[in-house]
Amino acid sequence: MSVSERAPRQAGTADESALDLLAIDTIRTLAIDAVEKADSGHAGAPMAMAPVGYTLWKRFLRYDPDDPAWPGRDRFVLSAGHGCLLLYALLHLAGVKRLDKAGKLTDQPAVSLDDIKSFRQLGSVCPGHPEHGHTTGVETTTGPLGQGAGNSVGMAIAGRWLGARYNRPGADLFDYNVYALCSDGDMMEGVASEAASIAGHLKLANLCWIWDDNTVTIEGHTSLAFDENVAARFRAYGWATLKVEDANDCEALAAAFETFLATSDQPTFIQVKSIIGYGSPHKQGTSKIHSDALGEEEVKLTKEAYGWPPEAQFLVPDEIRNRLGAAMRARVQPIAKRWRAARGDYARAHGDLAKELETMAAGKLPDGWDAEPPSFEPDEKGIATREASGKALNAIAGKVPWLIGGAADLAPSTKTLIAGADDLEPGDPGGRNMHFGVREHAMGAIASGMALCGLRPYTASFLIFSDYMRPPMRLAALMKLPVAYVFTHDSIGLGQDGPTHQPIEQLAALRAIPGMQVIRPADANETRVAWEAVIKRTEGPTCLVLSRQAVPTLDRQPGRFAPAKGLLNGGYILAGEETPDVILIASGAEVHLIVQAYEKLKTEGVKVRAVSLPSFEVFEAQDLAYRNEVLPPEVTARVTVEAAAPLGWDRYAGPTGEIIAMRSFGASAPAKDLMKHFGFTVEAVIAAAWRQLGSERQ
Amino acid sequence: MSVSERAPRQAGTADESALDLLAIDTIRTLAIDAVEKADSGHAGAPMAMAPVGYTLWKRFLRYDPDDPAWPGRDRFVLSAGHGCLLLYALLHLAGVKRLDKAGKLTDQPAVSLDDIKSFRQLGSVCPGHPEHGHTTGVETTTGPLGQGAGNSVGMAIAGRWLGARYNRPGADLFDYNVYALCSDGDMMEGVASEAASIAGHLKLANLCWIWDDNTVTIEGHTSLAFDENVAARFRAYGWATLKVEDANDCEALAAAFETFLATSDQPTFIQVKSIIGYGSPHKQGTSKIHSDALGEEEVKLTKEAYGWPPEAQFLVPDEIRNRLGAAMRARVQPIAKRWRAARGDYARAHGDLAKELETMAAGKLPDGWDAEPPSFEPDEKGIATREASGKALNAIAGKVPWLIGGAADLAPSTKTLIAGADDLEPGDPGGRNMHFGVREHAMGAIASGMALCGLRPYTASFLIFSDYMRPPMRLAALMKLPVAYVFTHDSIGLGQDGPTHQPIEQLAALRAIPGMQVIRPADANETRVAWEAVIKRTEGPTCLVLSRQAVPTLDRQPGRFAPAKGLLNGGYILAGEETPDVILIASGAEVHLIVQAYEKLKTEGVKVRAVSLPSFEVFEAQDLAYRNEVLPPEVTARVTVEAAAPLGWDRYAGPTGEIIAMRSFGASAPAKDLMKHFGFTVEAVIAAAWRQLGSERQ
Repeated sequence: MSVSERAPRQAGTADESALDLLAIDTIRTLAIDAVEKADSGHAGAPMAMAPVGYTLWKRFLRYDPDDPAWPGRDRFVLSAGHGCLLLYALLHLAGVKRLDKAGKLTDQPAVSLDDIKSFRQLGSVCPGHPEHGHTTGVETTTGPLGQGAGNSVGMAIAGRWLGARYNRPGADLFDYNVYALCSDGDMMEGVASEAASIAGHLKLANLCWIWDDNTVTIEGHTSLAFDENVAARFRAYGWATLKVEDANDCEALAAAFETFLATSDQPTFIQVKSIIGYGSPHKQGTSKIHSDALGEEEVKLTKEAYGWPPEAQFLVPDEIRNRLGAAMRARVQPIAKRWRAARGDYARAHGDLAKELETMAAGKLPDGWDAEPPSFEPDEKGIATREASGKALNAIAGKVPWLIGGAADLAPSTKTLIAGADDLEPGDPGGRNMHFGVREHAMGAIASGMALCGLRPYTASFLIFSDYMRPPMRLAALMKLPVAYVFTHDSIGLGQDGPTHQPIEQLAALRAIPGMQVIRPADANETRVAWEAVIKRTEGPTCLVLSRQAVPTLDRQPGRFAPAKGLLNGGYILAGEETPDVILIASGAEVHLIVQAYEKLKTEGVKVRAVSLPSFEVFEAQDLAYRNEVLPPEVTARVTVEAAAPLGWDRYAGPTGEIIAMRSFGASAPAKDLMKHFGFTVEAVIAAAWRQLGSERQ
Repeated sequence: MSVSERAPRQAGTADESALDLLAIDTIRTLAIDAVEKADSGHAGAPMAMAPVGYTLWKRFLRYDPDDPAWPGRDRFVLSAGHGCLLLYALLHLAGVKRLDKAGKLTDQPAVSLDDIKSFRQLGSVCPGHPEHGHTTGVETTTGPLGQGAGNSVGMAIAGRWLGARYNRPGADLFDYNVYALCSDGDMMEGVASEAASIAGHLKLANLCWIWDDNTVTIEGHTSLAFDENVAARFRAYGWATLKVEDANDCEALAAAFETFLATSDQPTFIQVKSIIGYGSPHKQGTSKIHSDALGEEEVKLTKEAYGWPPEAQFLVPDEIRNRLGAAMRARVQPIAKRWRAARGDYARAHGDLAKELETMAAGKLPDGWDAEPPSFEPDEKGIATREASGKALNAIAGKVPWLIGGAADLAPSTKTLIAGADDLEPGDPGGRNMHFGVREHAMGAIASGMALCGLRPYTASFLIFSDYMRPPMRLAALMKLPVAYVFTHDSIGLGQDGPTHQPIEQLAALRAIPGMQVIRPADANETRVAWEAVIKRTEGPTCLVLSRQAVPTLDRQPGRFAPAKGLLNGGYILAGEETPDVILIASGAEVHLIVQAYEKLKTEGVKVRAVSLPSFEVFEAQDLAYRNEVLPPEVTARVTVEAAAPLGWDRYAGPTGEIIAMRSFGASAPAKDLMKHFGFTVEAVIAAAWRQLGSERQ
């Protein structure tokens, strides 16, 4: 449809109340003014989608502005995060109250007019894209396209899971809906395709995606690269699809939302034809509106087109100042009140479940969650850390009901099935074993959505496939979500699958993410402790990096090797001299190499120390004294061993130490052949140690 | 459909010749025996897909076993790389000749029977997944799901591009087809969805995907996670879809391929219902077949089901030993002969184009490709390196016609449009400006496919979105493909878009990839030289990491700063003392900070050196003497500056140096505010230098 065919309609059509339109135009002009003032940002989407957001919030969204943390609230996800001013304006007009950093309700507005005026300035609660945890009412951090859409699927899964576990007759505590507003870009990103396929499979009738079909992207008309039949694609995924021909037609939008609410067996996709930058005489419907401010003259012309005072800035007309908030309060607060009453009764009738909910809401763990940890006896042959992980996960899962997750079609290999638990499937939304299919990217985004609703999710795949899911992992770190990413088959030690499946750079790439905790345990007992670290961490995600191959279970008795709880310090002395001449350092499945080298060198009279370094980040978080105790700066003779890229190891090897690492891709062969071929042997460690000691002996 | 409903049909049905079936069963039993011998690998897919591969190769694939490098050949991509034994068996039975490391034809077989016997052993040409460049006839490296499918789209685009540019009446040098065999996993991965959408948009009628619809994945039946209507989805993308009800029905398969060949205006998707592990009485049609060897007893039973000698190992019956190769030679060699004749005439009639083709095929550049580089005068204000990149790219593009590419909807921001060139669109397959849409992952996979067909592709996006496309970038590095990845907006310096868009860990994550060249130029002239490094590199991919913000253009005249060609050494002395007391080191847009600090410190009498370090990898490839000249080990007072994660910088800072880096995510604010907030200022560099010199002065 050409721009001229979609010229802006004037205000005040029969199906829109004049006041509603005034409020909608307020959203539009706030977006325009904020972008103009910041000289940066995207007004085009808010200008187009204002009627959609307004209609949804005013008439449908079950959201109490006075209680933005209400667990029973509907979730609104702005997957098109660049249109954040729509969300900021809605939060402002709804008068949503601010939560403080501790999550306590305040009397401050979540978003004040001054906040909108400080759009995209340092410290503003109106940053360039919506940031969860930074701005009250932002349900998830969005911007990188496709991610919010993926999160919304996780939220919908979590809502149904919570309902299945906790709802009781007369107490539908969890029956919320999830709405996601998506852009063309969201429709193009593969992560959203994956997530939509899962949502269709799971028949998530509590999920509604709204596609802002404006046919304009940054490079130009979507016909340049995107002319598929999106609605037909969603029908193929098993979604109900609806179409609203004009984003300004609030009654048509309302009818679509009504249809969504009446749909009980599949998710709903609403295609909304819109005009980006609606109202701007010279820029609407073009890519010029996408990322530039309108410019002073065009701002005036646009405001005139709305019937707005052309010189007014950040104007919120008195007539509508409280209109959205009042409508939402009038509609939702009676529901919220009944909910609280039901919740009160529930606490009396179902004390155990109520206690679970409180524990979960507080981000805590049930008493006795660690009562039955698996124990692993010393064993030369040992077991794979993935095997130990399976046992540790199951021990915790038995005590923490809201620990749920699954794999991207690798549950048997990653040992991540919860024994005895149901599959989470369309007919069993309370199952705990998710089947993500071969969709790592959506798996990551879905896990974040689940965490945002209070669950403790875990995902699983091979370490190599962490590359497929980095965007949501990064956002989980940014949001400080307690997601556990289980990655097995963590090196060339996976063997014959070859270089396409052998991670090299993935450990470094994960360690580089701010706030990401990466743990690569050395043996079964370190793995048990690693799961303890995972589950106790509430302030961010953890990658658990595990071996496919068996590794010896170290003897942790006094006089042998130090207790595995040293893992909680990130790095620790396994064994050795107080004043060593040489330090051997390794992580994960290579620790047994330095342990054997240590034993051999000791018999040869060398003053040697073996250090297990399962987590760079955790180690760096210890105080300097501890770090210097483990790795005394004056001991510069060092050998580090990790079957991965060397990047980052200079910090521990020092300028003269020797780094045994992978300097190329791997190869397809049995693991033992590869380890020898690429130099990961006890003999190689010993030879390096002698070199460090200034001798070519051995 | 349940397993019992799809019981194996006996050999010798009316529509298969007995000999063809014998050949097909040979493929099956070779796969079974190879997996059994290696005790590792996937026989299930080859057992199911043998009739598909055999029918395609014997009757349709335009492939001359005696000339596997023939530019006019059809491409067969095994996107389901875990089924590699299908490909190895086909290469063996077709008698495809081996190319040596230099690409020269030999008399050796590409895959001998002994090679198949050494499946998954060190050095074998039959590794666990197909590796391009390692095994003749493997058109691309596959295994990570979705990637081969994405590559195939790039190959199809390249075929049409080559045809549009080089075909002439009577000389259809490039009119090949691309076939990709895909698994359920390929259908689930988002990258394949993105690629399929692009293929539909571009109406790639030379592209045929075959979906091995076996309803079984590792975790179990696909109904666990995957019950969308795949064919309907492909129709929504604009593909023609066909269905073959039984993978064993060779005539139905042939009819489908005929329909594909007759389809001229859209790509073709063929759904082939199959039984994984076909013939295995106890494991076929189940996930048990997916990644385990059958076991001795089941092998015998399966062979019996085929009417095969149960004890025979690696048996290639005499009757069919040359059957596939003979059929392919008889069908294809007359075509190849006519092609060569046309190519000969073409060289005479179109000398310039023929010369281009020769240059391209040799991986070389046209004479004078660097004749008109842009020049950039010293300028305090300077320009963004993305701007300089746009000019340098265009200068080269004007001389190298087969340099083509585009952005994932960010061409205006990344400055990657080739001025004056057409868009590559359905009606203009010879255009040079690709529009990938918001599909970074497919963009990466498509670029690899284009490179595999001889083009020099580039992609473009923001650095943050490199996270969306790491899997194909890694495979490009593994395949040593000369792809250029342009990444702009390379730090918090992008400003107000905020932490969701500000890369932190991406530089480290890219540097960690073996074989990946990462270059972050400091100013306009380094950027020009960086493009020189990009285009001259034929043995692997390069990431070009560029600023959004303007940076000063350094004065490179004698006596001021060293020439920008120092970039070709990865790191070089910009200016300063022969025996410095302190060294300042930076990359990219932060170099101007150390330059200013250097100037200030010099005026204060400090013996200081400024080092530009645009590429870790390139610097590390220099000899030790050079590296020690740039960074003398005895000078331990060092300050490094890069607005990114610190991982990796210890190598250059040393144990006592100071690393100025990002220790958290960024924030949304104007760039200058962020730089100050996060400590990237000249003052901070100077203060760090004084600390390094043992003084708190300044």
